[in-house]
Amino acid sequence: MPHQTIKGFRASFLDTIADPFYAPESDCVRYFPDGLLVVENGKVKDLGSYEELQTKYADILISDYRDHLIVSGFIDTHIHFPQTEMIASYGEQLLEWLSTYTFPTERKFADRNYALEIASIFLDELLRNGTTTALVFTAVFPQSTDAFFEEAQRRNLRMIAGKVMMDRNAPEFLRDTAVSSYVETKQLIEKWHKCDRLLYAVTPRFALTSTPEQLTNISKLLVEFPDVYLHTHLSENVKEVEAVAAAFPESEGYLDVYDRAGLVGERSIFAHGVQLTDQEFARLSEAKSAIAFCPTSNLFLGSGLFKIEKAKSLETPVKVGLGTDVGAGTSFSILRTASAAYQVAQLRSQKLSAIQALFLATLGGARALCLEDKLGNFEVGKEADFVVLNLRSTPIMALRNKSFDSANLPTLTEISDQLFATIIMGDDRAIAATYIMGEKAEF
Amino acid sequence: MPHQTIKGFRASFLDTIADPFYAPESDCVRYFPDGLLVVENGKVKDLGSYEELQTKYADILISDYRDHLIVSGFIDTHIHFPQTEMIASYGEQLLEWLSTYTFPTERKFADRNYALEIASIFLDELLRNGTTTALVFTAVFPQSTDAFFEEAQRRNLRMIAGKVMMDRNAPEFLRDTAVSSYVETKQLIEKWHKCDRLLYAVTPRFALTSTPEQLTNISKLLVEFPDVYLHTHLSENVKEVEAVAAAFPESEGYLDVYDRAGLVGERSIFAHGVQLTDQEFARLSEAKSAIAFCPTSNLFLGSGLFKIEKAKSLETPVKVGLGTDVGAGTSFSILRTASAAYQVAQLRSQKLSAIQALFLATLGGARALCLEDKLGNFEVGKEADFVVLNLRSTPIMALRNKSFDSANLPTLTEISDQLFATIIMGDDRAIAATYIMGEKAEF
Repeated sequence: MPHQTIKGFRASFLDTIADPFYAPESDCVRYFPDGLLVVENGKVKDLGSYEELQTKYADILISDYRDHLIVSGFIDTHIHFPQTEMIASYGEQLLEWLSTYTFPTERKFADRNYALEIASIFLDELLRNGTTTALVFTAVFPQSTDAFFEEAQRRNLRMIAGKVMMDRNAPEFLRDTAVSSYVETKQLIEKWHKCDRLLYAVTPRFALTSTPEQLTNISKLLVEFPDVYLHTHLSENVKEVEAVAAAFPESEGYLDVYDRAGLVGERSIFAHGVQLTDQEFARLSEAKSAIAFCPTSNLFLGSGLFKIEKAKSLETPVKVGLGTDVGAGTSFSILRTASAAYQVAQLRSQKLSAIQALFLATLGGARALCLEDKLGNFEVGKEADFVVLNLRSTPIMALRNKSFDSANLPTLTEISDQLFATIIMGDDRAIAATYIMGEKAEF
Repeated sequence: MPHQTIKGFRASFLDTIADPFYAPESDCVRYFPDGLLVVENGKVKDLGSYEELQTKYADILISDYRDHLIVSGFIDTHIHFPQTEMIASYGEQLLEWLSTYTFPTERKFADRNYALEIASIFLDELLRNGTTTALVFTAVFPQSTDAFFEEAQRRNLRMIAGKVMMDRNAPEFLRDTAVSSYVETKQLIEKWHKCDRLLYAVTPRFALTSTPEQLTNISKLLVEFPDVYLHTHLSENVKEVEAVAAAFPESEGYLDVYDRAGLVGERSIFAHGVQLTDQEFARLSEAKSAIAFCPTSNLFLGSGLFKIEKAKSLETPVKVGLGTDVGAGTSFSILRTASAAYQVAQLRSQKLSAIQALFLATLGGARALCLEDKLGNFEVGKEADFVVLNLRSTPIMALRNKSFDSANLPTLTEISDQLFATIIMGDDRAIAATYIMGEKAEF
């Protein structure tokens, strides 16, 4: 296997080692203007300044990425692979958007070959945008989940996914049953969970599309397989919240529907949470659940502005990662997603710094996915999934982000400023290369 | 001169001939799936279906852009050329952003050579993004205005610009006086207004940075030169509106400050208008003034959500164009700007269709700038500034926007859908070429 060698990468390195929403940024990052990353068997063996490490690793082959910034691979905590082709569909908010565009598109994924074809395009697009791990909705058809995992496995990716479960409020052709969804999910877990780098998430679409019986079976699965994930949607849109209240009159709110069913735990990731109440933030904090903040989607569907300051409060801290939520999200790029997160913060008179955005995109995402022991930064022993950023990938970015003399490399303040501009203006062109377990990804 | 020849362009063509906010879209557009545009001496001589026109123009040289969509050149109704290099500056809302980033940057434009260098980069960036006409703030220094016009003239562009006027609430090094600003502006008008394709806009920064004496002199200029423009900022940010109320206690609101000074007329373009009251919309409507809607800026600075439905109401119709507002805006691309406009509309439960966005970007902008007789669509006799769009410029866009068989070209509904996706996801890569007076622009 090619990654069973030791190899080096010379570049600027910036990673987060603590949460900059709660501590001074300088305490939360490591920055090596001229650094050396050493990878052995696909994992981080060392990271430090090139000057200090060069003699120790004098014999290894070093890829030279000077004038580039290497960061940990981006983590997308919420995305739908069957919606790839329907990105940027016009004119609806959540519930109408689902019935008009989403359901007819997802129907195509009953065809295993079609699912394989789109899974391949989808994963290439993630890699092109520097995303190395994602938490992924497939379609309701188990063959769509198989197709996704097969393509992810072929690329040696750490991916989490699951078959959509929905047994009501959807067209007949997309519905499973409480029983079939239980059986199929169980088979998929047994087949794929912890197979190579793959992990499974039990994936009810959202409260409105599951009967109480299906919710009960989901909770059974979580008891039988305590280390799989729970991945669903929560409190995205005002009308949706109203519809959930009407459908579950005995519940005290949207989150409570999941809570009563036993779905709210440390390995639960809820997409959106735009409309959450203070009590719901408190409950998520208590349960150590995570939110996938999906700002391009929330702006595109007009869902609203996520209260990042509530999730990052001292009183009710909730784990948060960034999610593109393609196809309601409008870009596969975590850079563009972070740019939209900045806009949402500004509209709420909050600030989101480049270092905070980097944290959300890497270590924050890893924590949200309970993968901090494996991903999120360059700590020794972690998996070497990383991104080579070109901070000057277009003429306007080259003007904005001036080159530095190699004798006078940027300070942390300067590199943070250039990273900020790359977040605000960057796209897939800013991703010079994506590495998986120390191997350059082809796409 | 090379454009004194007759030449043709074969492509799909889509232009707007009426305002789709007030009439059915099909009545507002012309669409030729396989069309021929004929240009003579830099102006539109003919537009129609290729099949119908090909014999009539059998002898002319035809550029083949099949599988591309040609639209009228994009019009940016508000942008600052000296802010090019400070795009994406972190963490402040309007007033602090001005003092922290803008004023120190604009100081550099006292140097004529520096101004020339940035003007060249700026105009290249506009052309790379398909923008063929813009209404431009230069800096307070007349040499910065000269530099801009010289570079625009060299490229044969229809550009409107003016020297910033500000004689208070700015650092000493950026202040003019009521008298010097009058004299310098007058000289610049005499030198540049109607010189080739160039036009002049009298350009006070905003109410807070002009003394009543300067406002009086501005109104004198507008009387002396009735066909120049008035270009300034209006009601962008809540704190700014409060500061204007405090600085002009006798006025009935922000717009009234300009109105009392005689600055509110048919050739007045006000950037932003996010915080406008209903009465102010009514007054702008009555005066036939225009608003530059700058959504990427409004989101980036957290200024708020412009009420497009008020400007496009039957009761108080106000002319609206799109503005990038670089450097508070985060992109030179009118596509990205229209994408942000869609988000703003969605957050306010409004819809903005692809055809409406195309109108704002072309004919709407031309109307806002009183240039409807020269620009905005392909009517015979208009100046042939246009953009060749590649609707499949990236892998994800190629997946989203399927190719059509040449025997089975897209319907208006289909091309509108592909244009919508190009607005939402597109960037400078979607601009295959930009033509000025029928000549391909180099940049």
